[in-house]
Order: sequence, then C-alpha cells, then structure tokens
Amino acid sequence: IDSSSGVPIHSFHGNGIHHVSVNGSFYPAKAKSRRQRWEVKPSEMANNTFNPIRAIVDGMKLTPNPDKPMIALSIGDPTVFGNLPTDDAVLQAMKDAIDSQKYNGYAPSVGYLKSRQAVANFFSCPEAPLEAEDVILTSGCSQAIDLAISVLCNPGDNILVPCPGFSLYKTLAVSMGIEVKLYNLLPEKSWEVDLQHLESLIDERTSCLIVTNPSNPCGSVFNKEHLQKILKVASKHCVPILADEIYSDMVRTTNHPSMASLSSDVPILSCGGLAKRWLVPGWRMGWILIHDRNDIFGSQIRQGLVKLTQRILGACSIIQGALENILNNTPQSFYDNTISFLKSNSEICFNELSIIPGLNPVMPSGAMYLMVGINMDNFPDFKNDVEFTEQLVTEQSVFCLPATAFEYPNFFRIVVTLPEEMMVEACGRIREFCERHYRPHSRNSNDLDQ
Amino acid sequence: IDSSSGVPIHSFHGNGIHHVSVNGSFYPAKAKSRRQRWEVKPSEMANNTFNPIRAIVDGMKLTPNPDKPMIALSIGDPTVFGNLPTDDAVLQAMKDAIDSQKYNGYAPSVGYLKSRQAVANFFSCPEAPLEAEDVILTSGCSQAIDLAISVLCNPGDNILVPCPGFSLYKTLAVSMGIEVKLYNLLPEKSWEVDLQHLESLIDERTSCLIVTNPSNPCGSVFNKEHLQKILKVASKHCVPILADEIYSDMVRTTNHPSMASLSSDVPILSCGGLAKRWLVPGWRMGWILIHDRNDIFGSQIRQGLVKLTQRILGACSIIQGALENILNNTPQSFYDNTISFLKSNSEICFNELSIIPGLNPVMPSGAMYLMVGINMDNFPDFKNDVEFTEQLVTEQSVFCLPATAFEYPNFFRIVVTLPEEMMVEACGRIREFCERHYRPHSRNSNDLDQ
Ligand SMILES: Cc1ncc(COP(=O)(O)O)c(C=O)c1O
Ligand SMILES: Cc1ncc(COP(=O)(O)O)c(C=O)c1O
Repeated sequence: IDSSSGVPIHSFHGNGIHHVSVNGSFYPAKAKSRRQRWEVKPSEMANNTFNPIRAIVDGMKLTPNPDKPMIALSIGDPTVFGNLPTDDAVLQAMKDAIDSQKYNGYAPSVGYLKSRQAVANFFSCPEAPLEAEDVILTSGCSQAIDLAISVLCNPGDNILVPCPGFSLYKTLAVSMGIEVKLYNLLPEKSWEVDLQHLESLIDERTSCLIVTNPSNPCGSVFNKEHLQKILKVASKHCVPILADEIYSDMVRTTNHPSMASLSSDVPILSCGGLAKRWLVPGWRMGWILIHDRNDIFGSQIRQGLVKLTQRILGACSIIQGALENILNNTPQSFYDNTISFLKSNSEICFNELSIIPGLNPVMPSGAMYLMVGINMDNFPDFKNDVEFTEQLVTEQSVFCLPATAFEYPNFFRIVVTLPEEMMVEACGRIREFCERHYRPHSRNSNDLDQ
Repeated sequence: IDSSSGVPIHSFHGNGIHHVSVNGSFYPAKAKSRRQRWEVKPSEMANNTFNPIRAIVDGMKLTPNPDKPMIALSIGDPTVFGNLPTDDAVLQAMKDAIDSQKYNGYAPSVGYLKSRQAVANFFSCPEAPLEAEDVILTSGCSQAIDLAISVLCNPGDNILVPCPGFSLYKTLAVSMGIEVKLYNLLPEKSWEVDLQHLESLIDERTSCLIVTNPSNPCGSVFNKEHLQKILKVASKHCVPILADEIYSDMVRTTNHPSMASLSSDVPILSCGGLAKRWLVPGWRMGWILIHDRNDIFGSQIRQGLVKLTQRILGACSIIQGALENILNNTPQSFYDNTISFLKSNSEICFNELSIIPGLNPVMPSGAMYLMVGINMDNFPDFKNDVEFTEQLVTEQSVFCLPATAFEYPNFFRIVVTLPEEMMVEACGRIREFCERHYRPHSRNSNDLDQ
C-alpha cells in the first residue's frame, strides 16, 4: 500500500484501459495548431439570444419627470405594486413543505409523481383527460416553452408565432436556429387569428404552431368557434400545437375552453404555470400538459421531453412539494377577486383611453393587459411607438411598453394590475400627454379633432 | 365604435403595417409542399440528449434480495437517508423570505443584486476578489454549467472533461453538438490529472477545460501545486476554465484552494450552489462566479451570459431572497459536522473495503464519494462493473453505481452519506459478496489470495 495516496499499489494491474500513462507511454505534442494567444468569444447561441423587450427598453432614454412619481405600466409582473398578494393558502403550503423536510432532495427530473398527479387532476376534463404521466413540471412556463420547442423543432424548421405576441418564443427559437414566421392577429376582430394568413405560412418545415390564449400582450380570449378554426388549420396541415395557456382561467368571458378540450386529433403541448393566476411569477413553477388523444406524439415525443428535462432539472422541490396543496387549497374567492379586479381596472383604462383622440385601445377580456393603438399621424412629434412612450415617461412619468417589443409598432401595451387610483392617475396623465401632442390630420377627416 | 369588439372602427387607418388582410388582401395557397399526414418526431437535440447514468441504471436488472433491506449507495443526494438534514437557519431563512412577501415577483434574470452581493462576499478572497456583478444566480449548479458551456462553446468545438467525471458535462455538450475529449485522472496519484494527456488533447477548437474539484465521482481534492500545474496548461494554450466547485469546502484537507485564487491570467467560470454543502439539492440554487482578472472574458462573455439567462430565467425568487441569510447565518458547526461525518464514514468504508481481496478502494479527501476498483480477473462470474454491481443488488440488496456511468469501467462509486450503521452493514455485505465470487488468478501472484 502506498500510504500517502491510500491506494494499494497492486490496484491497477489488469485495469489499464484508462491509464495509458501509467505504463510510461508519452503523449507527443502533435503537430496540431493550437491557440497562441487568448481569444475567448461568446458563442453563436449567446450572440443569437436576443430579448427584444430588453433591447428596446435598454435603448430608451427613460428619465421620469421629477415632479411626478413614476407609474410603470410596463411589467407583466402582478406583484410589483403590492396590491395583489398571493393567497395565504399558497404561502402556508410553502411553509408546510419546508417544515416537512421531505422536499429538500432531488425530485425526479420530470417532477414528483404526486405533484404531477395534482396538476393532472386540476386540469383534467372529460373532453381532455389527463394522467400524472401527461404532466411534466418545469422551471416556470418559460422552461415549459423551451422544452416544447426543443423537442419539436430542429434548426432550419420554422414555427408559427402570433403577432403581436410574447417575445420569448422568438428569443428561444432564434437562439436555436429555428425560423420564426409571424402570423397576424386582427385587432378589429378582438385579436382573432388571421386564419388565411396563418395557413399561407405553413410549409413542410413548419414544426409547431404557437397559440397564446389568453394573449399577452393583447388580453384577448378566443371563443370556442375560433379555436376550432385554428385547430382545423393545424389538423389539415398536420402541425402540432404549443398552446401557451399561462393565463388560462384568467378570463372574463364564459366561453373560453382550452385548446385541448376541443380536439381529438391535433397533438397539443399545453404550457402553463403558477406565475400569473397564483400571482407568484418569481417562484418558477411551470408545467407541460401533454394532450395526445390520437397518439401522434406517441412515446417518442414523451421520451424526448423526459430526456430534455434531465439536462438541468426543473422546478424547486419545495414548490413541487407544496403544489398539491396550492392547487387544492386556494379558495375560489381568490381567483374570483383577481379576475374582478382586473376586469374593473381594464374597464376603467379602456373607458378613459377610448375618449382620448389619437388613441385606440382594444378592450381585453382576459390576462392582465390591454393594447392601445396610436394614430401616429396625429402625433407628428414622434416617429414611432418607442419615441411616443419614451416621451410619455419624460413628461408624465408613465411607462407603457412600446409594442415594437412585440413586433407590433404603433401600439403600446398597458398592464392593468396596478391599484385603481394609480390606473386612473395614469390614464389622466396619458390624456394630458396626448392632448398636448395631438395634431389633427387631414386624411381621416372623421377623426374627433379638438 | 364597433361595440361588439370594443374597437373603434377608425382605429387602424394609417396603421396598416400588420393588417394586410384588413385591406381585403388574400393569401393564395402557394405551391409549396406541406405535410399530408402526421409525422411528429423528436428533435435531434432531444435524441442527442443522453444521460449515461439513466441509460445504464435503466438497463440493469435491479431485483434486491427480498431477505435483505435495500441499501442504495448510488445516489448523489445527501438527503435520501434523512440523517443529514440541512441546518435550521437555512429553513428559517426560507420561511422568513416567504413571510416577507417581498420575493414573489420576477427577480432579474441574473438574480437579485442583494443575493449576488451575498454570494460575492461569501466567496471573495484577496487573491480572487468578487463583486456582485461577477455573480450570476442559476437554477442549480447544472444550469450554471449549462450556461458556462453555452457561452464558451460553439457546435464543432471541443471541451476537455475529466475521466472519470460527472456525466452532465457530456450530456449537455453532446446535445449541443460540442465534442467531448476525456482527459485521464490517475487513481494511483489520488486522481490527479494526467497533465501530459490533458495537454495532448488540446487543439485550436478546444474552447473550455472543465476541472471538477473536489471530484464527483472520485472524492479527490487537488492541492495547490497540482492546481497550478493545470492552470499552467490552460494558460500556455489559452483555454478558459470551467471550475466545477460545487463541492468546494466539503474537504478534509488543509491545502485546498479554489482554482481562481491561484491564477491571475486564466479566465475562470466557477460553478457552484447550495445543493451539496447546504444539503438541499432539490432547491435548485446555483451560481456562476466570473473570475477574469486579466480581462480576457471582458464584457463580451459577461454580456453573453446575461443574454443566456434571459432564455428561461434561473433560481426561484424565494430561495434567492433567503440566500443572504442562508450564507450568513448557517453556523460553522453545521459545515464542520457534515465534514467530520463524511470523513468518518469514508474511513470506515475505505478500511472495510481495503481488506477485501479483489477490491481497490481509493481513499477520498472531499465531496461525498469513494471510488472502488474491481480486479475483474478475480471475479470471472462477471463481465464488467455493470454485471458486478447488478449481482450485488440481487444477492445483497446493495446498490453501488457502476463507474461505466462515468466512462470508467471496472470501478464502482460509493456514496458515503448514509448512516454509519448502514455503511458498516453495506461494507459487510459487499465483503460477503466478494468472498463468494472471488477467484485467485495467476497473473498477479502477489495478490492476497484466500
Ligand atoms: C404568454 C406568456 N407565456 C409565458 C410566460 C412566462 O411565464 P413564466 O414566468 O412562468 O416563465 C409569460 C410571462 O409573462 C407570458 O406572458
Ligand atoms: C460535480 C457536480 N457538479 C454539478 C452537480 C449538479 O449540481 P446541482 O444539483 O446544483 O445542479 C453535481 C450533482 O451531483 C455534481 O456532482
């Protein structure tokens, strides 16, 4: 025994596979070229990872008016104003999970079975039944989307993405060498999909259709008939659907089925999470619901998803441990209160902005956003929505996200989660701002010029 | 106003960029080929995501002996036996973070500044000072490694990975089209790096050298002199280092500096997290420490990392919120107790296994593992380490991970986190097993044949 290393000397006889050097072999410096100086560059993937919201916001000069307190209507985080706390049952579930000390170890890469079962039970319905094995827990809905795109698409494929739409789809796809084709939503039809446009974009490399319903940034909710029409296009051209349903049930309509409940043939990966409805976006708890009643995904896509979850694992085990109680113990009144608050704020905002010349708000019916069109011709002081919203900060300390961040210029998005008084105040300031910069223009003589 | 949609009819004049269909345009069905039938296949990336541990373990017939309770020495999760709870201060920090209700919203993609500062303070030392901006918080050390490889490497590049080594490096790299070159560790030198072999592998497409110290699966800890030699190779050939230091300070030696403290020129991404030292692997709290005193990474790599964090965001906000208290309030005795427990268990295990003919344990000095060589010639009943460990389950209900899972056949890895009595019991069973199957062989006549 070589006592210094604690290794018996006889150890490695007959086990030389890896220990070439033990036998005195020498690795000659091969005549291969090596680096002579440091040159460490970020990868293509890093260079191609592009967050349009960050890119645009970081490029704006946001200097609020010192005389007016800042009101940020820009961030899709319902917690920022403090007026929408999560339910006590949610917090209690977390503390119970911590106290149990049962959830400190590694969870399976797809999540605890019990937690997957709880999600399956919560979302299962007769038209789209779910079992635990149809659920994969993820680190936020973002990772759910990442996994869904990763399993369905190869570099060179294309995906169909709503315009205006949530920017993450493009950020992820482009970083993976997947082409993004934007299909139009129609503001004059409450942001329904332009089905002809959608269909015209499909080709044989189209590997996924993303449908965001309810929508960020539009706040729109598709009715059953419209969803069926979208499903028909997907079915006709055999394109699987990624249904981003993170805002599911945050709606103010009665006719708002999930995609999966309306289809028995189109395979659907429905992505969701706790972030919005439970008002805890920082917790990074998301899921994929695998709907595949026609067995199109089969075991291959399921296996592919499982393999991808093993790369970095998903959601925090404490939250996974709390999930069953969160889903089962959160009182209905909590959800109802959030919805009625968002409804009332949306109405206030819509009503206030509708009467402002030059602005065209579109009434939402779900999620927590409202899109506002800007008749740019009426605002010759500004080249575009970015300049408009920038100056709105400078003069009025109100920040709305320019919809260029959603590939949709000349609109801006308002988040309606703030306290009612602030909503009213913000609308008043927007009105003051618009009145100051509004110029009647000749083309649309029917505009309400003042 | 069209009252049904809530959209003023005049809204979209002058704003037609996206609304081609509003103007009655029609999208003709282009003569492009589309899919006529369903064929949804998992992506290349999913197919190329390969977890060797899962692949090997899933392929084993693991049927424990019904007369003996199962002892699993296979899982690198210190929580599974219940004998190593985390500290109460850690749990309290979490509950305080929940009660504060300050950490339910989105954290910045790189983590809360305050939490990054806490990590910087905790790991900063005069030789390798850290500021908050040198820290990026991630979802476990796994995501830290994923981001580090992602920012440094392009498809077609190669990375240098220790053999035996933690399998995740290869899983991630191969799924991204990056080549893995294994450099040998030398069991007879307490698993130090075969420096000549390492150097011989470097070429101009080598974009990262991964050093795992302390090591999984070896439990080895490199001393200062050896680390300096590794750094010299990296420096000579201008290869940046990914230092996987998730087991840092889980050591039983006095001479165990971090990589970064020994280099002023080689840029180092040090990956770590709460998983092991704080005994909460399920919580998914990790970090990257950016050491770049020679400004080789510069702002580009930092920016690249920031961009990559925006893809799916990182660690849960509650844990981020608790991080400062976790790092500052965990008593030294907690760390010390864990280390002395692991030391004592390692010694028991090493001593018990050293006297078993045919086995060659290598004494570890850190982390929570111990590698055991099998003189396969002495065990003609088994073709390899996989069959050996499989039969050990069948007969003795003891499961050790065959080191084929670490690309290192004819060894197995033992996890030393289990309660002492179980450790003793497991070693006794391994001894019984070996004695039963041991056959003296002629080649090594100096073996202690019985
Ligand atoms: C439509 C949509 N999908 C997904 C997400 C991401 O959700 P998470 O925070 O759970 O990753 C958001 C967040 O704003 C969203 O608006
Ligand atoms: C060497 C090494 N690095 C990284 C990890 C992953 O750490 P985490 O669980 O924080 O992702 C492990 C886990 O076993 C490990 O052994």
